Amino acid sequence: MTTWEKWLEAEAGQREAAGLTRRLRAWAADDATIDLAGNDYLGLARDPEVRRAAADAALRWGSSASASRLVTGTFVLHEELELELADYLGQPAALVLSTGYHANLAVVTALADRTTRVLSDAHIHASLVDAVRLSRARLSVVPHSDVDAVHAGLAAAAEAGERAMVLVESVYSVLGDAAPLVELAALCEQYDALLVVDEAHGVGVHGPGLVATLGLAGLPHVVVTATLSKSLGAQGGAMLGSSALREHLVNRARPFIFDTGLAPAPTAGALAALRAIRARPELGATVRTRVASLADILGVVAPAGAVLSVPMSSPQAAVAAQAAALEAGLRVGCFRPPSVPDGISRLRITVTAGVPEDDWARAVEVLVDLVKEHQ
Amino acid sequence: MTTWEKWLEAEAGQREAAGLTRRLRAWAADDATIDLAGNDYLGLARDPEVRRAAADAALRWGSSASASRLVTGTFVLHEELELELADYLGQPAALVLSTGYHANLAVVTALADRTTRVLSDAHIHASLVDAVRLSRARLSVVPHSDVDAVHAGLAAAAEAGERAMVLVESVYSVLGDAAPLVELAALCEQYDALLVVDEAHGVGVHGPGLVATLGLAGLPHVVVTATLSKSLGAQGGAMLGSSALREHLVNRARPFIFDTGLAPAPTAGALAALRAIRARPELGATVRTRVASLADILGVVAPAGAVLSVPMSSPQAAVAAQAAALEAGLRVGCFRPPSVPDGISRLRITVTAGVPEDDWARAVEVLVDLVKEHQ
Repeated sequence: MTTWEKWLEAEAGQREAAGLTRRLRAWAADDATIDLAGNDYLGLARDPEVRRAAADAALRWGSSASASRLVTGTFVLHEELELELADYLGQPAALVLSTGYHANLAVVTALADRTTRVLSDAHIHASLVDAVRLSRARLSVVPHSDVDAVHAGLAAAAEAGERAMVLVESVYSVLGDAAPLVELAALCEQYDALLVVDEAHGVGVHGPGLVATLGLAGLPHVVVTATLSKSLGAQGGAMLGSSALREHLVNRARPFIFDTGLAPAPTAGALAALRAIRARPELGATVRTRVASLADILGVVAPAGAVLSVPMSSPQAAVAAQAAALEAGLRVGCFRPPSVPDGISRLRITVTAGVPEDDWARAVEVLVDLVKEHQ
Repeated sequence: MTTWEKWLEAEAGQREAAGLTRRLRAWAADDATIDLAGNDYLGLARDPEVRRAAADAALRWGSSASASRLVTGTFVLHEELELELADYLGQPAALVLSTGYHANLAVVTALADRTTRVLSDAHIHASLVDAVRLSRARLSVVPHSDVDAVHAGLAAAAEAGERAMVLVESVYSVLGDAAPLVELAALCEQYDALLVVDEAHGVGVHGPGLVATLGLAGLPHVVVTATLSKSLGAQGGAMLGSSALREHLVNRARPFIFDTGLAPAPTAGALAALRAIRARPELGATVRTRVASLADILGVVAPAGAVLSVPMSSPQAAVAAQAAALEAGLRVGCFRPPSVPDGISRLRITVTAGVPEDDWARAVEVLVDLVKEHQ
């Protein structure tokens, strides 16, 4: 056995002993289980029009962009999506990347360097954490949604003459709470800093997202990143902001420059989903109504996004509840350490507009019983 | 104007003054230009069967994986691709990720930490450079393809008791030369180190890749990463290695865990392309024959991969030659600083099996004239 094999074995043994080994489970296309664990908040990944648009794009444009966007991997289709995304989110410009992870890596690494101060909320997504690390910026992790701490951090950065950036999510993925965007944007304006808002869980559920809904879209000190793989039912990510920022990313963002462009099918899928979101505002409204009602029934605080987080007593209880849900025909999520910021295991229930009313009512009944039994 | 706006403006001004501003150009679906700039080496991104498979998958599975592979974003389709990829490349296991960039980030960051020694070839791809930075490993950049330097580095790491990893590409993207894989694998075996080989430009053009062709597949001290967006005509990336390594990445690789799974269309597209490569070995053979012949005619050294690199006297000459090619109906690539490791601007010509014989003959004539005129 090589040193590396022994190391892998030791790591696996530790995971196993701690009950933390995670394994992939593959789903069949005809599986009838109701998915309340993914991020298809509006049901658009399985919408007939969205599927058809994705399929048509593969037939028409081919199955790959086949090159970096900067070489020959930019199709008119990418620009169409960028223009319509920017228009809907109320931003001057958009740039589409191949994953949401890459959108965050691109924005942060193209803007921040060793001389930049980054104030990063304690609950931001792994992709933003990695982005800051990759940028080598001067990092200050700020307690979760602590406006005073951001204020103090920005004041200190201004004092030190550092160019400063604040990283938040509009709706946080694990706890489902919303960031105090209005206060943060005001502080960033006051201190000449940049607010970067990841709208992964905001767009769609809240129409054009919380930044737009709160009247913050298009401000020069607010930049948005978004994913195309949640409400937009496809794959990829995007930066939304000024044209100057778009041009800067095109020229400087390594995860954009050195990556193949987003494939035609997911590009067209996201575009069709975007059009569906604009044409059917009831999709977001359905999610919000279902969230409020289910949270009330389960006795948890209603989240700002589509994902209800139900704290469980232990990783084992969370796993048992998840298995019981599956028995009853429901896939729900289960988040355990190390992928939760506070160490508390949770059942995660995605509320989606993609489930018909009667299935949803049945699902709610099952969930209520199950949480009662395992919490 | 905010500080950030002024900074963006200054950066743009510097690029413009240096003649290095890059702009996106969007292609229409019905554009008749012959693409000799992308990475569709075998022409499979536009192959009717591959397009059809991608389209069918979007219809059947939906337009998104809608969740992390670890949550509910793993479909039977992903596993099918992983099994067939591993089988073709002669490896025990494979793990598919949403981009090739992510495959490299995942492998390096899940294996290397502050205590690991990474010996990284000076010409490795940006994604591997970023991966090492993200891992915080102890980095030694080794002169390009310098086996003695790798030897010395491994000896020093062994002396220091460091777990060591060597990062190379089987075929390097800019110069198109092949890594001395046999020698490097022997050194890694001798020093109990891990050789990570990025086969982005090797798979397809060389059938199952150079690692497999040279009899190095399946060795415990050799790990492969690959992209699905070049010869495999789709999008995404993969790690190929032991089952233990696959399980390790599933549990530890943040770019795998915190990213949405690869969408169904590109997954199925890559699978169909893989089957085409196995069924039609003449595809790779055509590319290799055309490369040898064109290199001979242009008087450059034949590359190990599908991309011919023709040094030009200046960035301006390279741009002029590229524009002349486009006039003549050919898209060719143009690499200028800062995306070339040695500062030499180049015309990059992708040889592809996707162009019919008569078009190819015409393209060769145009290229010969054009290089003569602008070199």
